[in-house]
Amino acid sequence: MSAPLRYAMVGGGRDAFIGAVHRHAMALDGQFRLVAGALSSSPDKARASGRDLGLPDDRNHGSWQALLEDELKRPPGERIDLVSIVTPNHVHHEVAKAFAEAGFHVVCDKPLVHTGEQAQDLVETTRRKGIVFGVTYNYGGYPMVREARELVRSGAIGTVRKVVAEYHQGWLATQLEETTNKQAGWRTDPARSGVAGAIGDIGSHAENLLATVTGLEIEALCADLTTFVPGRRLDDDGSLLLRLRGGARGILSASQIATGCENDLTLRVFGSTGSLAWRQEEPNLLVHAPLDGPRRVLTRGSPWLSEAAKRACRLPTGHPEAFIEAFANVYLGVAADIRARAAGVAADPVAADYPRVEDGARGVRFIERTVQSAASAAKWTPM
Amino acid sequence: MSAPLRYAMVGGGRDAFIGAVHRHAMALDGQFRLVAGALSSSPDKARASGRDLGLPDDRNHGSWQALLEDELKRPPGERIDLVSIVTPNHVHHEVAKAFAEAGFHVVCDKPLVHTGEQAQDLVETTRRKGIVFGVTYNYGGYPMVREARELVRSGAIGTVRKVVAEYHQGWLATQLEETTNKQAGWRTDPARSGVAGAIGDIGSHAENLLATVTGLEIEALCADLTTFVPGRRLDDDGSLLLRLRGGARGILSASQIATGCENDLTLRVFGSTGSLAWRQEEPNLLVHAPLDGPRRVLTRGSPWLSEAAKRACRLPTGHPEAFIEAFANVYLGVAADIRARAAGVAADPVAADYPRVEDGARGVRFIERTVQSAASAAKWTPM
Amino acid sequence: MSAPLRYAMVGGGRDAFIGAVHRHAMALDGQFRLVAGALSSSPDKARASGRDLGLPDDRNHGSWQALLEDELKRPPGERIDLVSIVTPNHVHHEVAKAFAEAGFHVVCDKPLVHTGEQAQDLVETTRRKGIVFGVTYNYGGYPMVREARELVRSGAIGTVRKVVAEYHQGWLATQLEETTNKQAGWRTDPARSGVAGAIGDIGSHAENLLATVTGLEIEALCADLTTFVPGRRLDDDGSLLLRLRGGARGILSASQIATGCENDLTLRVFGSTGSLAWRQEEPNLLVHAPLDGPRRVLTRGSPWLSEAAKRACRLPTGHPEAFIEAFANVYLGVAADIRARAAGVAADPVAADYPRVEDGARGVRFIERTVQSAASAAKWTPM
Amino acid sequence: MSAPLRYAMVGGGRDAFIGAVHRHAMALDGQFRLVAGALSSSPDKARASGRDLGLPDDRNHGSWQALLEDELKRPPGERIDLVSIVTPNHVHHEVAKAFAEAGFHVVCDKPLVHTGEQAQDLVETTRRKGIVFGVTYNYGGYPMVREARELVRSGAIGTVRKVVAEYHQGWLATQLEETTNKQAGWRTDPARSGVAGAIGDIGSHAENLLATVTGLEIEALCADLTTFVPGRRLDDDGSLLLRLRGGARGILSASQIATGCENDLTLRVFGSTGSLAWRQEEPNLLVHAPLDGPRRVLTRGSPWLSEAAKRACRLPTGHPEAFIEAFANVYLGVAADIRARAAGVAADPVAADYPRVEDGARGVRFIERTVQSAASAAKWTPM
Repeated sequence: MSAPLRYAMVGGGRDAFIGAVHRHAMALDGQFRLVAGALSSSPDKARASGRDLGLPDDRNHGSWQALLEDELKRPPGERIDLVSIVTPNHVHHEVAKAFAEAGFHVVCDKPLVHTGEQAQDLVETTRRKGIVFGVTYNYGGYPMVREARELVRSGAIGTVRKVVAEYHQGWLATQLEETTNKQAGWRTDPARSGVAGAIGDIGSHAENLLATVTGLEIEALCADLTTFVPGRRLDDDGSLLLRLRGGARGILSASQIATGCENDLTLRVFGSTGSLAWRQEEPNLLVHAPLDGPRRVLTRGSPWLSEAAKRACRLPTGHPEAFIEAFANVYLGVAADIRARAAGVAADPVAADYPRVEDGARGVRFIERTVQSAASAAKWTPM
Repeated sequence: MSAPLRYAMVGGGRDAFIGAVHRHAMALDGQFRLVAGALSSSPDKARASGRDLGLPDDRNHGSWQALLEDELKRPPGERIDLVSIVTPNHVHHEVAKAFAEAGFHVVCDKPLVHTGEQAQDLVETTRRKGIVFGVTYNYGGYPMVREARELVRSGAIGTVRKVVAEYHQGWLATQLEETTNKQAGWRTDPARSGVAGAIGDIGSHAENLLATVTGLEIEALCADLTTFVPGRRLDDDGSLLLRLRGGARGILSASQIATGCENDLTLRVFGSTGSLAWRQEEPNLLVHAPLDGPRRVLTRGSPWLSEAAKRACRLPTGHPEAFIEAFANVYLGVAADIRARAAGVAADPVAADYPRVEDGARGVRFIERTVQSAASAAKWTPM
Repeated sequence: MSAPLRYAMVGGGRDAFIGAVHRHAMALDGQFRLVAGALSSSPDKARASGRDLGLPDDRNHGSWQALLEDELKRPPGERIDLVSIVTPNHVHHEVAKAFAEAGFHVVCDKPLVHTGEQAQDLVETTRRKGIVFGVTYNYGGYPMVREARELVRSGAIGTVRKVVAEYHQGWLATQLEETTNKQAGWRTDPARSGVAGAIGDIGSHAENLLATVTGLEIEALCADLTTFVPGRRLDDDGSLLLRLRGGARGILSASQIATGCENDLTLRVFGSTGSLAWRQEEPNLLVHAPLDGPRRVLTRGSPWLSEAAKRACRLPTGHPEAFIEAFANVYLGVAADIRARAAGVAADPVAADYPRVEDGARGVRFIERTVQSAASAAKWTPM
Repeated sequence: MSAPLRYAMVGGGRDAFIGAVHRHAMALDGQFRLVAGALSSSPDKARASGRDLGLPDDRNHGSWQALLEDELKRPPGERIDLVSIVTPNHVHHEVAKAFAEAGFHVVCDKPLVHTGEQAQDLVETTRRKGIVFGVTYNYGGYPMVREARELVRSGAIGTVRKVVAEYHQGWLATQLEETTNKQAGWRTDPARSGVAGAIGDIGSHAENLLATVTGLEIEALCADLTTFVPGRRLDDDGSLLLRLRGGARGILSASQIATGCENDLTLRVFGSTGSLAWRQEEPNLLVHAPLDGPRRVLTRGSPWLSEAAKRACRLPTGHPEAFIEAFANVYLGVAADIRARAAGVAADPVAADYPRVEDGARGVRFIERTVQSAASAAKWTPM
C-alpha cells in the first residue's frame, strides 16, 4: 500500500451529515489522510470543527479561500493531493472551480452545481487542467450495483425495455425545516439547494443509478413535481415518465414525504430476456430473474460475480458491507485514478471506477429539465 | 347456512383460466351451486366442458342464448339465481345485457365491456331492473386490502399524498400469442380484448385497487403506452402519472413484459401521518408505517384488525389464505346482497362488500382515457 | 369429472376450527359432497351444526354410532364413500376403528390416536379391510413441499446431512385454556389430547414434514419438554436433537409459547451439494441453494418444477395458493385412491399422494418416544 | 477527538482474513493508528506484510517477541497503547499473557484460548495488571443487538422462556482444507484451532450473542457434534439443547456444512410477553413482536431506540451500517475504556461497551463443556 493521499475538506463541520460520511469512507481503507480543512462557512465553527478532527492550527482555516491560498504556498511534498467539497450545493461551483484551476484534484458532492452553465464550466476546466474530478454519486460504489451494470453489459437480460427507479424518504413529511434541523434547512432553501428539492437531492441519485446500471441516457421526460408540506418552497415529491435511448421506457419517483420510507432507493430493470432488482437498504443482494428459470439471488462476495463486483468487496459473503463501504469504493476509484496519473500510466478501469464530472453535469441537466417539464403543458421535454 | 344459490356460467370451458377460478371460488363456501352453463362459444366444446363439470344434458347448452331461453322457461324454484360471465371481454356486454334485462343477477369478469357507452348501458339496466351486478375485481376481496381501506378511512395515515400502484407480469415478454396459448391469444387481440392490452387486462385492476383502498378517484392522467414485443397489436406496457381528487398524486405502472414478475400487484399509499404497503404475492401481510413509530406488520386474522378484515377471514393467523379465498370473498359479498334482496332487507354493508357495475364502468373509462392520453401530446387528460 | 364422493363428518360442529377447514378443502374441487354427519359429541349441538350445514334430518345424527348404524342400512348408491373424522384426538381411535371395520374409507385428523397400540390396530385393520385411510398431515399437500421432496429424491442436494424442522406458535403463551377458548381447552387436556401437548399437536406435523421431504426416518431422539405456562398440564414447548437414518442429524423445535409466531412451520434441509428451505407462511416459495451457484427461488406454478409439484397447483405462478388448497390436495389424493380402488386399477402415484395410516402410526410413535426421552437421563432414546 | 491510540498488530499478515477486518474497523473512526506489528509467524512474511501496511522498518518485526522487546524499550509517548492479537487460536494465550504482563492493553480475537486454565490465567492477569482486555465477539457491536439487549433488560418481552441461536455457514461443506485455503486449513486443525471446529469457531459466537442479549448463562447443555466431511478431524456441525438460568430453554445450532448459508447468525428470544428476532445478514433490523399487537420492525437509527443503540450508529436510518461498523463499535468501546483509565475516571458504561476477558473465558468453558457433552451418554452436562 502506498502512502495515503493528503486531502483537505471544505464543509463538513459540526452537525454536518455528509462530511462525516466522507471522512469515514476515506479513513476506511487507509488511502487518504485529512491534513487540512475549511470545515464551515462560519470561521469560528470551521476552526472548532477542525480542532475536533485534530487538524493542526496552521492547516485549520476559517475559509476555503484561506485554505487554497495556504496550500499553494506549501511545497509539493506537503501540499494536499485533493480537496473534498461537502458544503451545501450553492457553494460547490466556486470552490470546485478555484481548486480545479489551481490544479488540485477534486471530489465534490452531488448535485454538482446549480446550473448547466456552471456544470459545463467545470467539465471544461477539468479537461483543460487534466485533473481528476469525482462526484459522489455513492450508490454506484455498491458491489451489487456494479454487478447489475456488468450483467446488463454482458447481455444477461437482453435489451432493456422498462426501468423503474425510486428514491423514497419520509423524513421531510413534516415541516422539519422550521425546527433546528440543519439538513432540512438548507435542502428546502432555493438559495442553497437550487431549483429543485427532492428531485435535486435524491432524484438525481436515482437518475445516476439508472444511467450507471443500464448505460442508457434519458432522451425525454415528463415530470409532475409537487410540494405537499405547507410553507415549503421546493418540491418534496416528483414523479416522472422517461423515454430512454433505444426505445426503453422508464418511471422515476423521488419523494421526501414518503412516510415510512427511510432511504429507499431501488432500481428494477426489465429486459427482453430477464430482469434485475436492487434495493439500497439490502445492498448485498441483487435479484436476477432470467426468462427461462427461477430467480437467482446474487450475493456480494460470491465467486460467480463479475470482476468489477468482486474487486469492490472487502469481506466474504454473508459479512455485510454497507453504505460507508460503498462510499469508500467511490473514493478508492478516485485514488486509483490519481495514483495512475501521478505514475503517468493509464488507470485500470476496474480500479478507477467512480462517477466523473460529466456524470455530475448530466445530473444537473436532469434536474433542470425536470423542473422545466413540471412547468410545461406539453407531455415530453427533451433532455 | 341457507341453501346454495343456483348459478349458470357463460364461458369458462376447457382450457379457460379464469372460469375455473370462479368455480373454485364459488364452491369454497358452499354458497353457490353450478346448475347450468354455456361454457364456450363453440357449441361442441361448450357441451363437452359442461359434461366435464357434471352438468345434466338439459342444462348444458351450446350457446348463451339457448341457456337464457331455457332458464326463462323453468319454474322459479329451479331457475338460476345468477349468471357468471367469464368469457373473453368482447362478449361481456351482450350477455350481461341480456341476462340483466331478463332480471337475473349478474357477475361479470373485468374489464366490464369495451366502451363507456356499453358500461353506462349496463349501469342503467342494473338500476332499472333492481338486480345485483358484481364485477370480479377480485383483489379487493383480500382481507388485508380491506384492512388497508379501513385504515385509510379511519384516518390512520392522515391525508393521502402519493399513491404508487403497480401490476407487473412477465408472461407476455415473448410473442406467446403466436403459440397455442389461448390466454395470450385473446388478450392481445383488439377484437376480443378491446382498445387496450396490458392496461386493460391488469392496469384496470391496479386502478380498482387504488380506488378501493384510497377512496380517491383519478381526476387526470398522463399515459405512456408501449408495445415492446414485435408483431403485437396492443400495448404490453403502460406507465401513468395520476392526479387524484383532493390533491394527491399517483404513479400507475402495468406491464406484461416485466420479466421475472409473476403476478406482482402492489399498492403503496403515503399519507401525511403514515403509509401502507401491500403486495398481492404475500397477501396476508399489510405494512403500516406510522410517522412516529416503527413499522407495524399487520397480519390476516389478527384480533386488532377491523371488522371488515376479520369477517373476510376463514382461518386463524399464520394459516395463509390466498387468491381463491379472496375471489370467494367477492362472491360472498354478491351472495349476501342477493339474499338480502330476496329477503327484502337492506344488506349488511360489511357482508355485501363487492365491486359493482359502477366500479366496472369507472374501470372502462380509465382504460379509454389512458388510451386517449397515450395518443395525446398534452400532458394531462381529464377523466 | 366424476360424480362427487359422498362423505360423512364426525366432529367439526359449531366452534370447531379444523372441521370447517376440512369442509372448505373438500368443497374446493367438487370431488366430495357432505351427505351425513355426527358433528359433535353433544347430540343437540351435533344436530344444530348439521342443520347449519344443510344436512337433511335423517342423516344428521346425534352420535357417530347412530351415523354408522344408519349408513350401514342404506343402499350402496346412497351410502357414504368415506368418513372424515375431525374430533378431538381421544375419539379418533374408536370412530376410525368402527368405520374401518365396516369397510368405509377413512380420513382422520392427526395425531392419529393416543397410543402405539391403537395406531397399530388401525394399520392392521386398514390392510385387512383393503380400505383407504388418510391422515391429514396437510402440509405435505403444499406444491412446494412436494417439489422439495422431489428435489431430494432427484439428488439435487446430494446426501442429506442436517435438517432443522421448526413449528412455532405463540397462541398458548398465556393460560388461554382458562378462558372459553375451545381449541385451547382440549389441546391442553391430557384426557382429550393425549400424553403430549405442543409436541403432539404441532411437533408431529414437523416430524411428518421432515420425513416427507427427506424420506429419512428418525433412529433416535433426545428431547427436552417444558411446560412454561403455570397451571398447564402438558408440554407447551419441546426441543429435540435427532439422529436420522444414514447418519444425518436433526433439530426439531415445537412451541406454542413462541410469542410473535403465528403458524411458523419451517423446514431446512442441508445436503452435501445444496440445501432447501421452506416456510409455511410463505408457502408458494422454495429456496434451493446449490453448492456452486446462487440461491434459486422456486415458485409454485413454474414450468421447471417437477410433475408432482405442478399437478398440485390450480393457479398460475404469482396467484398464490395457500392452506386450504394444500389441505384440498391431500383430499384429492384420497379421492384418487378411492376412485382407483373402485375402478379396480392401481392408483396413479402422483395423483394418490396423501399421508397414510402408517404415517399416522409413525407420528404416534414419535410422540411416545419424545415423551419417554424427556423423562430420561440418557441422551438418546431409540425410535 | 483525542489523538489516536497507537496499536501493534500480532498476526493478520498477507492472506489473513480477520486481521484486515480489525484494521478496517480500527481505521474507520480515527481512534486508532497502527504503529508496529509482527504480522505473521513467518518472519519474512511478517515483514513483507508490514511493508504493505506502511510500517517503518524499526517497528516491523519478524516475531511477537521482538515486537514486545522493542516496545518495552521505547519511551511512553511513542510506545503502543494496545496490542491487537489476530493470530490463529493456538497462539493467543502466550501472546496475550506476555503483553498483559508487560502492562499493555489487549484486544484478542475469539475463541480466547484453548483451555479453561489458560482463560482463567488471562482473567487473573488482566485483573492484577489493571489493563483493558477486549475479546472481539464482534456481533454485540451491532446497534440492533444492543437494542435487543436493552429491550430484554427493560422487560419489553417479559420473562425469557426459549432462545434459539443459530450460526450457519456452508463454506466447509467440502474438504476445503485440502486446497490452499488458509482459513480452512487452520480452522480444521486441532493443533491450531483447539478441541472444537465449528462449535469453537462460530458456536462460541452464538453463545456470546445469546448471553449478551438475554443476560442469561447456560446452566447445562446437551450436545451432538458431527464431522460430516470425510477426512476432517474436528466437528463441522453441532446441535445443542440448553438449560438457562431461571428456567429458560434453548437451542443452539452451529454448522459449517450448512450449504447455501453464508454467515447466517440469528437469534430469536421468546419471552412471556413478546419476542425478538435478529439476523446478522440483515443487521439493521430487529423484529419485536409484543403479545398484544402487531410485529414492530425496529430499524437502526430510529429516534425511538435506546440510548445504547443510538450511540452505536454513525448514519441515519436507511443508510445501512454493517459488519465493519459493528466491529468498529467493539473497538470504540475498548478505546473509551482505555481513555477513561488514562484519565483516571470511571468509564461511561454506554461508551465502554465491549466483550471482556471474562466473556472470552466463558466462551472457552462453553466449548469445553460442549465437547464433553458430545462424548457423554448422559443427557445433561453442567456448565
